[in-house]
Amino acid sequence: MAKPLIRDRGSRLLEAAQTEPGSPLVGILGTGDFSRSLARRLVASGHQVVVGSRNPKRSAALFPDEAEVMSQLEAASQADIVFVALFPEHYSSLVELKQVLGGRVLVDVSNGLCLNQDGPSNAEQLADMFPESHVVKGFNTISAWALQSGPRDGSRQVFLCSDSSVAKASVSQLCRRMGFIPIDMGPLSASLEIENMPLYLFPSWKLPVLLSFALFIFFYLYNFIRDVLHPYVTSGKSAFYKMPIELVNVTLPCVALVMLTLVYVPGLCAAFLQLWWGTKYKRFPDFLDKWLIQRKQFGLCSFLCAALHMIYITLYDVFYIFSLLIYLFIHLQVKNGIEDSWVSEDVWRMELYVSVGIMAIGLLSLLAVTSLPSVANTVNWREFSFIQSSLGHCALFMATLHTCLFGWTRAFDAKQYHFYLPPTFLLVVIPPVSVLIFRSLLFLPCVALKLRKIRRGWEKTRHIRFTLPDEDCSSPQLSKCV
Amino acid sequence: MAKPLIRDRGSRLLEAAQTEPGSPLVGILGTGDFSRSLARRLVASGHQVVVGSRNPKRSAALFPDEAEVMSQLEAASQADIVFVALFPEHYSSLVELKQVLGGRVLVDVSNGLCLNQDGPSNAEQLADMFPESHVVKGFNTISAWALQSGPRDGSRQVFLCSDSSVAKASVSQLCRRMGFIPIDMGPLSASLEIENMPLYLFPSWKLPVLLSFALFIFFYLYNFIRDVLHPYVTSGKSAFYKMPIELVNVTLPCVALVMLTLVYVPGLCAAFLQLWWGTKYKRFPDFLDKWLIQRKQFGLCSFLCAALHMIYITLYDVFYIFSLLIYLFIHLQVKNGIEDSWVSEDVWRMELYVSVGIMAIGLLSLLAVTSLPSVANTVNWREFSFIQSSLGHCALFMATLHTCLFGWTRAFDAKQYHFYLPPTFLLVVIPPVSVLIFRSLLFLPCVALKLRKIRRGWEKTRHIRFTLPDEDCSSPQLSKCV
Amino acid sequence: MAKPLIRDRGSRLLEAAQTEPGSPLVGILGTGDFSRSLARRLVASGHQVVVGSRNPKRSAALFPDEAEVMSQLEAASQADIVFVALFPEHYSSLVELKQVLGGRVLVDVSNGLCLNQDGPSNAEQLADMFPESHVVKGFNTISAWALQSGPRDGSRQVFLCSDSSVAKASVSQLCRRMGFIPIDMGPLSASLEIENMPLYLFPSWKLPVLLSFALFIFFYLYNFIRDVLHPYVTSGKSAFYKMPIELVNVTLPCVALVMLTLVYVPGLCAAFLQLWWGTKYKRFPDFLDKWLIQRKQFGLCSFLCAALHMIYITLYDVFYIFSLLIYLFIHLQVKNGIEDSWVSEDVWRMELYVSVGIMAIGLLSLLAVTSLPSVANTVNWREFSFIQSSLGHCALFMATLHTCLFGWTRAFDAKQYHFYLPPTFLLVVIPPVSVLIFRSLLFLPCVALKLRKIRRGWEKTRHIRFTLPDEDCSSPQLSKCV
Repeated sequence: MAKPLIRDRGSRLLEAAQTEPGSPLVGILGTGDFSRSLARRLVASGHQVVVGSRNPKRSAALFPDEAEVMSQLEAASQADIVFVALFPEHYSSLVELKQVLGGRVLVDVSNGLCLNQDGPSNAEQLADMFPESHVVKGFNTISAWALQSGPRDGSRQVFLCSDSSVAKASVSQLCRRMGFIPIDMGPLSASLEIENMPLYLFPSWKLPVLLSFALFIFFYLYNFIRDVLHPYVTSGKSAFYKMPIELVNVTLPCVALVMLTLVYVPGLCAAFLQLWWGTKYKRFPDFLDKWLIQRKQFGLCSFLCAALHMIYITLYDVFYIFSLLIYLFIHLQVKNGIEDSWVSEDVWRMELYVSVGIMAIGLLSLLAVTSLPSVANTVNWREFSFIQSSLGHCALFMATLHTCLFGWTRAFDAKQYHFYLPPTFLLVVIPPVSVLIFRSLLFLPCVALKLRKIRRGWEKTRHIRFTLPDEDCSSPQLSKCV
Repeated sequence: MAKPLIRDRGSRLLEAAQTEPGSPLVGILGTGDFSRSLARRLVASGHQVVVGSRNPKRSAALFPDEAEVMSQLEAASQADIVFVALFPEHYSSLVELKQVLGGRVLVDVSNGLCLNQDGPSNAEQLADMFPESHVVKGFNTISAWALQSGPRDGSRQVFLCSDSSVAKASVSQLCRRMGFIPIDMGPLSASLEIENMPLYLFPSWKLPVLLSFALFIFFYLYNFIRDVLHPYVTSGKSAFYKMPIELVNVTLPCVALVMLTLVYVPGLCAAFLQLWWGTKYKRFPDFLDKWLIQRKQFGLCSFLCAALHMIYITLYDVFYIFSLLIYLFIHLQVKNGIEDSWVSEDVWRMELYVSVGIMAIGLLSLLAVTSLPSVANTVNWREFSFIQSSLGHCALFMATLHTCLFGWTRAFDAKQYHFYLPPTFLLVVIPPVSVLIFRSLLFLPCVALKLRKIRRGWEKTRHIRFTLPDEDCSSPQLSKCV
Repeated sequence: MAKPLIRDRGSRLLEAAQTEPGSPLVGILGTGDFSRSLARRLVASGHQVVVGSRNPKRSAALFPDEAEVMSQLEAASQADIVFVALFPEHYSSLVELKQVLGGRVLVDVSNGLCLNQDGPSNAEQLADMFPESHVVKGFNTISAWALQSGPRDGSRQVFLCSDSSVAKASVSQLCRRMGFIPIDMGPLSASLEIENMPLYLFPSWKLPVLLSFALFIFFYLYNFIRDVLHPYVTSGKSAFYKMPIELVNVTLPCVALVMLTLVYVPGLCAAFLQLWWGTKYKRFPDFLDKWLIQRKQFGLCSFLCAALHMIYITLYDVFYIFSLLIYLFIHLQVKNGIEDSWVSEDVWRMELYVSVGIMAIGLLSLLAVTSLPSVANTVNWREFSFIQSSLGHCALFMATLHTCLFGWTRAFDAKQYHFYLPPTFLLVVIPPVSVLIFRSLLFLPCVALKLRKIRRGWEKTRHIRFTLPDEDCSSPQLSKCV
């Protein structure tokens, strides 16, 4: 390639581009899948890479040409930052490199096989073996796939921890150059938490799902006693065929309503605690913090139950019609005024509670859609709060109204109290009604004003205001308490 | 930490990594939540940070160790870029720093409490107070949460504006280092718009939602007059029980069909305007530009109505069956040939319009799913256009056919014209049929060819072609007009 | 702007920020939409830009002030990297610049008008014209819109290829500075593939969608013969009215079940191949690799069919009830014990298969939601595998059970074998049952252990283990085979 003289400046730049000034020489020990993907990504982001292998000749073919494959000793002595891409059980094979690795930054990228609650973490074990090296934990949550194909939204965060802040800073910078976002998790003792991260199985879903199941079982048994056992015991009528569908269908909306109520209880508690304390700078009890964070999961569990209820009711029409049919059939021969008697209170009630129920499920669907990460990312804070708080309370109100209209005057009918147990709809309507009442208390001008002042930084005791730029009605900090 | 001699090069790099060369010293005035999150993020992205506090001793504990907390005067005089993280009402407290802040870059990160249409913006007020500083507006759309936990997709854009392009460039670079994407919005006069951004409440949804409501009210009243008032006035029959469900169910598909039609009207207008003008380089009227941008919202409103219609119809079966039942009951005793008469034109018609309706809702669901930001991001332009344009027109055709099959020959039945009002399905089918006809005109070879030429840059008057690399059938520019 | 002396250090930094050291001077040839957006983005990311136009005076107004518009010759001779933003058919107009462009990096950003399978690509044609320049293909998948407004998640990847690795590296670095992620696709011969990228129309959906259609047609005809033709031929009864809804409704679940089975077949094949070979380092046959990648599409096709089946069945209630009604009507006059006879085996069977069907569709919905890119991005590998593998097999089991319960004892009823054809549910239940049986074989301790060893890198022949950090039960590499 003959370059004309005029190209002098450009070609200099081109050569400089190859290895950016100040970029560290990165070493990788190990030749597995992760190691190969890491090498490819490092090379692609402009780093010089050396790979340490126990069998350099055989491994060289697996790596990109720009990465030099050599013995582990050579790689360790040249590199500034050394990735230890070995199984933890093979760490001991590195003991012979101890002297060379002294003073270097070692990055532990290993994962555990199962949740490790007690420690020590792999990274801490590595640090014990190489006390003179600076061990940084990180990159274990990144898959080989994300390394190779470029990070996607979900895999852009790299959690780092180390006892050496200098080492951590240099790995952070490496991260950023590779297109990831480093998240500082503190000292090396956080490594256990970081190693457990990819092993968690929906930790934030555990409580909501378990609670949904518990509520389901409770209400199912309650309904079973009232609707199946009672007629069987008192009049010998067998209604066991109701178990797979009808009872499930009656139980699901109970669970949905209670779970939806539980979404709005913690915000209420937080608001009343802040009013009580007269400050927003006091920590909420742990359980409340956890609850506030899991509201989305509670809401989605509620939505799932409500959606299943809707599917059941539409599919159940077939059976429902049957019973109506027979009822009709028996009575039709007796009286003639069927058409008039039909267009009565019952029809109005039914039409109304079905309408309100559809509106409630419609609102819940909107809430569910805006819970999708990609949709939530496109709305600003005020819009998010409008949907999750205003529309959410609207949905709660509609669902409560749906239940009340379903119950109608039957709450006052002594015959409904089988075995002295109140009807299910009565039981289930109490929590949401309480939440709605307490919530409306917060709208009283005096209470609302005081709460607002507190959330802008006012404190009862100090009467000094912090000066915060975004602590206003539209600020994300409020999300914790609204 | 004893470093062996062999580590010389590596350790130099490590120290260099700590503070990148050329990275400015960043100051933050104020000690609130936002200020703390900002400090943490700046430190994490390798910047040197000083925080100016009115009470440095008390505030120091709130900030990361790497950030130095000092008096406001000290911080202001050291920093190259100063973030003003105070409530706007406290800006006046900075007057004493006026001389020190002269020539510095001041970043105004404040938000308003409510939409401010008239100005001046907070940033403009700050600029008036410190005429010798270079005020840059920005970061107000970023939450403290996004600053701390690393930007997510939705919060990666930082909108900046300033009258000093040098100041803007240096804040832009700071942005990029923090992992955000700076978007240049021009001079400081744009700050009002930037401050209003987080206060908007779904601006692009306003028109479609209001229009949907208006159409709903119109068609509801229209159907009320025809189906409830007419029988009551003419024969005294009370059909008021139809109001909560049946009328709503008849009204929803009308709104859905009209809204779906309105999705395809602006594209058609744009195409005909371009054909008329003979160029694509002339601006569309403002209302058309707005309409083109809001097509997605129109479509989703249409989908919501169609989905509710589907829910209503399935839940309404119960009531529908009832009326059929009674009808059957009365006639069954009269004639015996029920089975034969039942399998008739009416059944075919019903089966067909239900089938076509299901296909229409299926297609609309596909369109809705591909409107989700994360799905839309994974398809290329040709795929997006195939779904939104080809499948979209298909859905419009199906929905129209569904309505026509529902109407059948009743359009020609004089008895359907209650109070001389045409049946709803007739009214509602006119707009989509017109759109489909005009659309098919665009497929005529001569018209299609001319439109294509225009969209590749051809102009009637100049006969000169711009040379654009991606102005072809698959280019995003066409999105505006297809 | 009078700068006080104290500002010395700050202002130096500000000026340095404007043009980063080492950033190449970028030239753009052409003045179309893409060219303008590119110029704006380059300027915004701190690059110096020169634009080469055939009519510099007229074009200057279209570009940002920071970009200098000049003649093509001037631009080409100054720039280090030259973007060729012309239509490919105008490349020949650049011949006069041949000498100046020698040694420069030329970036070909052009797109084709339609899929080009044979080559040569536009970039290869450019390289033929300018043999002394270093042609890099890239940026063609990025829209002018993404350039201007900042890249979104979906448009962050820039695919690059070139025969000169130095040129590729410098364009890669430019990419990263602009906020994009460069993906190295190898030598210039890959440019044909890169140019075809934005022209593909859902390549991964082709097979699943076609297969769904084929299965639909097959089962539709099969059901047509059994349910419509058979009664017509044997007893002259016309059941043609069943064609639009009832037959479709019976056919859809067949397609859904077979497609769902096909999701789990390739994983099973992969596991058995690995067991057979005794290694995971042997390539799967091409068709299996393709199949493994398209499992998500197969699953979504299955979900779509199942969802349509649910809609059909709920809407079909109306018709279904009719036939039941008539049946009831005829028999009711004969026997009185209706209530007792009704609460029988048939009701239990129906209740059970409806329940199980709802559970199956509920699980499938969960699978569909977690297939959304933004949701998939937020779960870790173990969670993804739990949902797609464990819940997925659960859904397959439920769907199979649903079919079995629907069939019940009718499989053993000779009368069901119209024209000697077995009932559809029998035909359709065979593949999923086989898959479930083979799958459960993999849970046998000896088989499970061996498979696990193989997937951690063990090989039958070599008995040497690669040392891979993340090749464990929770590693993304396993996704190919689980």
